[in-house]
Amino acid sequence: MKFNNRNVWIDPSAKMGTGVRIGDNSVIYANVEIGDGTVIANDCVIGEPSGDYYENPDYKQELTRIGHNGLIRSHSIIYAGCVIGDQFQTGHRVCVRERTKIGHDCRIGTVCDLQNDVSIGNNTWLHSGNFVAQGTNLRDFVIVYPHCVFLDDKYPPSEKLHAASVGDYAQIGARSIIMPGVSIDQHVLVASGSTVVRDADKYDFVRGAPARRVSDVRKITLPNGEGAYPWPHRFDRGMPWSEIGYDQWLNQQEP
Amino acid sequence: MKFNNRNVWIDPSAKMGTGVRIGDNSVIYANVEIGDGTVIANDCVIGEPSGDYYENPDYKQELTRIGHNGLIRSHSIIYAGCVIGDQFQTGHRVCVRERTKIGHDCRIGTVCDLQNDVSIGNNTWLHSGNFVAQGTNLRDFVIVYPHCVFLDDKYPPSEKLHAASVGDYAQIGARSIIMPGVSIDQHVLVASGSTVVRDADKYDFVRGAPARRVSDVRKITLPNGEGAYPWPHRFDRGMPWSEIGYDQWLNQQEP
Amino acid sequence: MKFNNRNVWIDPSAKMGTGVRIGDNSVIYANVEIGDGTVIANDCVIGEPSGDYYENPDYKQELTRIGHNGLIRSHSIIYAGCVIGDQFQTGHRVCVRERTKIGHDCRIGTVCDLQNDVSIGNNTWLHSGNFVAQGTNLRDFVIVYPHCVFLDDKYPPSEKLHAASVGDYAQIGARSIIMPGVSIDQHVLVASGSTVVRDADKYDFVRGAPARRVSDVRKITLPNGEGAYPWPHRFDRGMPWSEIGYDQWLNQQEP
Repeated sequence: MKFNNRNVWIDPSAKMGTGVRIGDNSVIYANVEIGDGTVIANDCVIGEPSGDYYENPDYKQELTRIGHNGLIRSHSIIYAGCVIGDQFQTGHRVCVRERTKIGHDCRIGTVCDLQNDVSIGNNTWLHSGNFVAQGTNLRDFVIVYPHCVFLDDKYPPSEKLHAASVGDYAQIGARSIIMPGVSIDQHVLVASGSTVVRDADKYDFVRGAPARRVSDVRKITLPNGEGAYPWPHRFDRGMPWSEIGYDQWLNQQEP
Repeated sequence: MKFNNRNVWIDPSAKMGTGVRIGDNSVIYANVEIGDGTVIANDCVIGEPSGDYYENPDYKQELTRIGHNGLIRSHSIIYAGCVIGDQFQTGHRVCVRERTKIGHDCRIGTVCDLQNDVSIGNNTWLHSGNFVAQGTNLRDFVIVYPHCVFLDDKYPPSEKLHAASVGDYAQIGARSIIMPGVSIDQHVLVASGSTVVRDADKYDFVRGAPARRVSDVRKITLPNGEGAYPWPHRFDRGMPWSEIGYDQWLNQQEP
Repeated sequence: MKFNNRNVWIDPSAKMGTGVRIGDNSVIYANVEIGDGTVIANDCVIGEPSGDYYENPDYKQELTRIGHNGLIRSHSIIYAGCVIGDQFQTGHRVCVRERTKIGHDCRIGTVCDLQNDVSIGNNTWLHSGNFVAQGTNLRDFVIVYPHCVFLDDKYPPSEKLHAASVGDYAQIGARSIIMPGVSIDQHVLVASGSTVVRDADKYDFVRGAPARRVSDVRKITLPNGEGAYPWPHRFDRGMPWSEIGYDQWLNQQEP
């Protein structure tokens, strides 16, 4: 249904891997590389030029690279200069600004708005409607639930930006605000609707506006009495330990 | 202006009612039925396939049905398997995921993001920018103001989802969070910016984060001293009682 | 890349200034005027008709005017009846409803949703994802950070709307809610995540939900000990005082 080569425009300089499919009404601009088997659905823009393109006759389009076996859903916009790993998946209407770097096996939900120079590790998922400020750093296996906002300006407006960072396995509850410069450590759980104004330590469960430490995530139990966190012991859909279990997978990793 | 049959694509299997208009750049995929007089504006996608379409060579497109006299504004995406009643109206850039069921006379505002298997009754309106999680149930005459979030996961991430539900005539104030599994009863008023973490009983007025019961909605008065709630007594624009008044209309309904 | 005249549709009645560029897949509807040097990027809709267009055979398209040297990024929708000044810039997927008036040198970020009859002064910037209710009035040099919501209905649902207003130089922190009818005076700073339920006086720094006055903005200091507010003394990127300083620029203004 989506791949009729209707109103598709691919710049001659774009390098398309084997089995790449481009949906109707999509455009691939100059200096874009797309890995084998990746699907760009309809009405997408890959290699969107930065503002300089409109003003500078000497504008030079940076390399945009998307890895293998990705699926970019319709109406998404990926700016030039983005480098994105394999198995990348998006919802609809995602916008990723220039020079953002994203690892492998990441997912970005519908209407997410990632600013420029964001860096995201591997296996990190963002649900719908998140805003991620310039320079924010999300590490591996982070999950950001819907409608969070990551900020970068302590004294708005200013030119000096302080991006936030989030460690491996942290979970950022829906509709949370992460204030500029805040560092959230590994395995932290941020409750929905929190405003995180100071750093959170490893395993902290924080909640509120401003968010305060409520307990240690390892004390949170499921209705059946088992420990809920760290979550990798009980959740493996789409995770690299889905066939062998988290402990065995962890033992196999490089130290 | 919008209906020039320019870059329109309609699958041969789609069944189009009398007087249906399809805007430029819109696509109607397979197995879609659109009722008489419905307008699909420009740049829409009706019958968007689920993720299975990209992976499964035996993908089967579910029936998508939109009733009579609807108006779907531009850039909206309605997934396959949705069944939607008559007089349906949307803003722009709405996304409704697979198998969501919506009754008659409903309105979904700009940039709303409804997940799969949501069920919505009749005459329910969602303003702009709402996120509605999988399985959420909104009954009749509910109004959800802008930028609310309905959640479904108590111990994120997990596979066991607990959807929220909202009863007839309830009003959900802007920028509210409805936590997983919460049940909001008929005629409840949720103040703007609330986080609703526990069930709200019929006629409760709740406010805050976490939301607490402030009073009974029937005690809220307008500046002129009249009671403000239940609101159907004083508001009838677009409602079925607009010509006869709420009390008379209510008497006419089936018991 | 963007300007190949591919699938572009311009109504014959539209008046296009010198050097105007229209991106691929964009449409310019009837009775639109676009000033010299303005760029409309790809997939935009300028002169979007109001709901009346779908129902009324005598629908008359109001004049839509966009000034000189603007840049409207892709997938934006500007309704008929909007009058917008020079050097207007938008992000992607902006929607501006009918009859909204915007001065010169304004910027509206990605996915902002401005309702009808909003009025915005000069040099006012809205970051990403803001919702601005019908009739809201934002004056000059206001900056609204991401994901704020401006409301207009004190007793939802009702027909009597109370729009909010924001004075010159005020800064509205990210994810804030401005309640209906609230008046925010000049130079006010609203902290991120606030819910502003009552008027804020000149130079107030307000924070919280509900927001309370914390101090006078003139007492907020930067890490180097200098005063942070009023901000025009320390920030000039894109501002008319960028070459001469704020004090000298202020002296040159009409009293």
